[in-house]
This record gives sequence, structure tokens and C-alpha cells, in this order.
Amino acid sequence: MSFSTLRTTPAATYLGGNAFNGQVPILNKDMTLCISLSARPSNNGTRFHNHLYEQLGLNWIYKAFAPTDLAQAIAGVRGLGIRGCAVSMPYKEDVIALVDEMDPSARAIDSVNTIVNTDGHLKAYNTDYTAIEQLLQSNALPTDYSVLVQGAGGMAKATVAALRDAGFGDVTVIARNEASGRALAEHYGFPWRQALDGGTADLIINVTPIGMAGGMEGKAAAESLSFPQDAIDAAKVVFDVVALPGETPLIKAARAAGKPVITGAEVATIQALEQFVLYTGVRPTREQVRAAEEFMRAQ
Amino acid sequence: MSFSTLRTTPAATYLGGNAFNGQVPILNKDMTLCISLSARPSNNGTRFHNHLYEQLGLNWIYKAFAPTDLAQAIAGVRGLGIRGCAVSMPYKEDVIALVDEMDPSARAIDSVNTIVNTDGHLKAYNTDYTAIEQLLQSNALPTDYSVLVQGAGGMAKATVAALRDAGFGDVTVIARNEASGRALAEHYGFPWRQALDGGTADLIINVTPIGMAGGMEGKAAAESLSFPQDAIDAAKVVFDVVALPGETPLIKAARAAGKPVITGAEVATIQALEQFVLYTGVRPTREQVRAAEEFMRAQ
Repeated sequence: MSFSTLRTTPAATYLGGNAFNGQVPILNKDMTLCISLSARPSNNGTRFHNHLYEQLGLNWIYKAFAPTDLAQAIAGVRGLGIRGCAVSMPYKEDVIALVDEMDPSARAIDSVNTIVNTDGHLKAYNTDYTAIEQLLQSNALPTDYSVLVQGAGGMAKATVAALRDAGFGDVTVIARNEASGRALAEHYGFPWRQALDGGTADLIINVTPIGMAGGMEGKAAAESLSFPQDAIDAAKVVFDVVALPGETPLIKAARAAGKPVITGAEVATIQALEQFVLYTGVRPTREQVRAAEEFMRAQ
Repeated sequence: MSFSTLRTTPAATYLGGNAFNGQVPILNKDMTLCISLSARPSNNGTRFHNHLYEQLGLNWIYKAFAPTDLAQAIAGVRGLGIRGCAVSMPYKEDVIALVDEMDPSARAIDSVNTIVNTDGHLKAYNTDYTAIEQLLQSNALPTDYSVLVQGAGGMAKATVAALRDAGFGDVTVIARNEASGRALAEHYGFPWRQALDGGTADLIINVTPIGMAGGMEGKAAAESLSFPQDAIDAAKVVFDVVALPGETPLIKAARAAGKPVITGAEVATIQALEQFVLYTGVRPTREQVRAAEEFMRAQ
């Protein structure tokens, strides 16, 4: 597919003149396909992207896949001319060997969550990194803020890399697991500590599953604060990268303490939106994004 | 995909209780995908299959592709777990090396127009052959009929093979091109002739583009009779494998002469229907097929 073949048609053409009613247009052969690859797909991407396609009158469709073989699936992206491909667990690192080019956002954390196919050339991005980068900028956080990052998984890596690349110098990684925590911190030139031990900072960031609904840590963890109250009270800004629910116990406690917050829901929306922009070259309005998010959640 | 995961849900679930209005359901991650591979896809398959999915309440979608690379596209069928894949020009022979098993319908003519993916095992069929086989049977044509087949392309091969396999013994292939005509005829043990030269038979079959609207032979050919009037008058049954229009000049002349006819539209419908049945395991009613055909044509 050449990018110049992007087709836009008024949404009314598809809808027979009706207002949007939650259905997608009649399928046709010319639709551009975008997909996701994940061992356990959710319905979020499929609903978010398809809703935006329809709002914007794009002759595109999006569908999630649980591939049986990653290399064959990526061959299919090339061979079928699939324009865009979101990559989720557990493929974010294995896919690196299968693409043609790594954008700095993916190279910064050796992890891919987005592939754009332009005439058979596959370029890999990481829009989680991009989203955190954007949020650090748009919230105008001073780079001389001290920062505590709790977590050592893939999103923690994206967070720590974005902090370093934005110029933050006083960052400490807190992680129970010494091997992964120390490796992550040292890779980006920051210290690691196993526990918070009463530590405080201007910016506290949770990137653990604590406070996440339906996480593997169970119900107790979902109701737990990922930082203690005194760390919240001492912070100037509280950032919870956990996306579900939008209001984690940490975010609620921070709001109650009158602190500015950045939520995981914002990260999730921006990363999905940036995927949409990379695929289509079109940037939806804030209102269109909000409508797509609402549709996505109304499952 | 295991075949046992076939999901059926009442169509009303997708449509929010509304009557069918030509739209497909809200897309979701669990939809089973079927595709077609063709250098120049038409919209027919996409409309025919999607309409049947909706009528039958199947959580499936269908979309045509013009692949950039056949081997990679077939890898994608495996890697993405795409359930079914129609194969059109110019891939019907090249794809043989890429599948795991050839059904007799495909082996009879060394040509594939359908692939069914069952847990990564790709079995190839040719439903053009199946359709002609069915029409010879359902029209109860005596195998001692003399037969003239005009043409030497892929559909002529399917026709001649189906005639031989059904037990017809007196078949002559008429083709201007000696190399392809003679090869085809001899492969199935029949004589070849370069021109009709006033010949007649009980069953006359056109498998050339003569009479086809929009064919490469141009407007004059589209209005031409593929058999002369005296051959039509001498025939007991007239069969035109050309699918568009449904009423070719040959079919019109045969009807005018009071002859029973078999049309290319019947071949096209049966071959598409048999693909649908192979993919889904569900056989739609005659009424559902008619509705899908009408929807397909209403472009």
C-alpha cells in the first residue's frame, strides 16, 4: 500500500446518511487493514480504532489477532499489505528481529508496540514511550524535580527512558526484584533501591500492577496504595502509569491531598492515538478521541 | 483456530435488534477472518460472504486482498489464523507449493481457488470444479451426450475434468490456440479441434470470454454468439460458463430456441457457496444465498 492511496470519504457514504449508530460501514475490498498481535487480545484497540475510522470517514478496518506464529504473522503484514500492527505481550521484544527499521522511541527501550508498513518497509515505534514523553512535556514538569519510579517491567523501562531523555537527572528506581530493578536503573544511569523506606520525591511514579483492577496481584493489591500517604503528601506531582481503573487508589489519594495527577488512562489514550496517527496520517480532534474512548469502554 | 470454536450468535445481537440494513456488525476481536488473494480483487466475495455472515449470525468477517507477495500472504494465513482464503488470478497454480494438502477437486485440475486453514493445516480445494460437477449432476445430463467445449483456459480445464470425471466419453475441445487447446484435450484423453467448422453436439459449452461483458475481447465480442445458431439449434442443452452478464448472447439465443440452459451465474454462485460451506461448516438456505447474491450485485 502506498501511503498516497489513503482514501477518505464522508462518513455519510458508509452510513447511508444515518447518524452514527455504533455499527461499522459495509465492508469492501478497498479497506485498509490494521491489526494487533497479542497472546491475549482485548477488544479495546478494535473498538477504539474502528470508531475513529468511522467518525473520520476513513475506509479502514482494525482487528485484533492472537497469532499462532509471530514470524509468519509479520510475513502476513508484509504479504497482505497490512498498514499498521500493534504489538503487545509477549511479542514486544521478539518482533525487533522481524522489522526493517527502529524508530528512536522503540530503540530507547528495545521494545516495539507499533509497526507501520509503508510499501513493505516495516518501521517499529513505541508509543508508550512517546506517550510518557508527551505527558512529561505537556505537564511542564521541571527536570530538576527529584523522581521516584516504582517498577521494573516494560512500562517502567519506557518511563525511566523518557525521564532520562527529557533531561531528568535525579531519578531513583524502586523495585523488589534486584536483578531486573538494578539492570533497568543502571541501563539508564540511575540508582536502584529495593524498597521505598520512607523515601520521598517531587515526582512519584507508580509503574507496578499495584492498584490495577484485574491485575495478577489480586484484589488486595487492587485496593492498595502503591506509595504510602507520606510520600504522596511530600510529592509535588503524582503519576500512576496503571491504566485500569482510571482512578487508582493512588490517584484518588493524590487528588484528596490536592496534588496534580497524571493518570494511566492518559498514557493509554495517547499511546493509542499516536498509533492511529502513525497509521493514518490523520490526527483526530480531542472530541473525536473522547467519543472513541467512550465507545471503547461501553463494552 | 480450532473448528470447534465456531461461534454462532443470533444476528439480532449484532444489530441491536434492528432489521438488516446492509451494515455489518460492530467489529470485535473474536471475529474469524476469511480473505481472498487476487491481483485485481472485485468486491463480490467481500459483499457475498459478509452478508451471509450477518444473516446467519456468524461472528466472522471477510475481506479481499491484493497481496504484494504470495508466499508471505500464505504465511500470514497460517500465522494470523485466517480461516479461509479464496485464491484468484494469477495465484491459482503458484499456491499449490504453499499448501499442505490438495483435495481431489484441486488435484483434478492442478489449480486451487480455495484454502481452508484448520489449526495451521492448509487444505486446498477448487470449487469451480465442484460447481461444474454439481451442475452436470443436478441437471441430470446423460453421460452418452456428445459434448463440445469451447475454450482452453483455467475454467475450460475445470469443465473438461468434471466432464471426464462424471463419465462423459464423447467430448471435443475447440480452441484456436493449438498449444493450450491440444494440451488440455490430451491431458484428459479427448480430441482437440481448432475450429467448430459446423460441428454440433448434444451439449455445447462455452468457456471462452466471448459474450462476457467487460472482457478483454472488447465490446464486439461481448455481443457475439460463442456458438453459431445452427449449433444452438442442434443442441439438447446449452451451458455458458461465462458469469457476467447472467444472460449472455448465447444464453439468450438458447432460451429463444427453447433449449434448457445452464448459466455462468449458477457456476459463480455455487462456487462461492461451497467456499462458504468449507470455511464455516454451515450451509445457508436457498433464500439466504439469494439475498446475499442480491446484496453482492447491488454495488
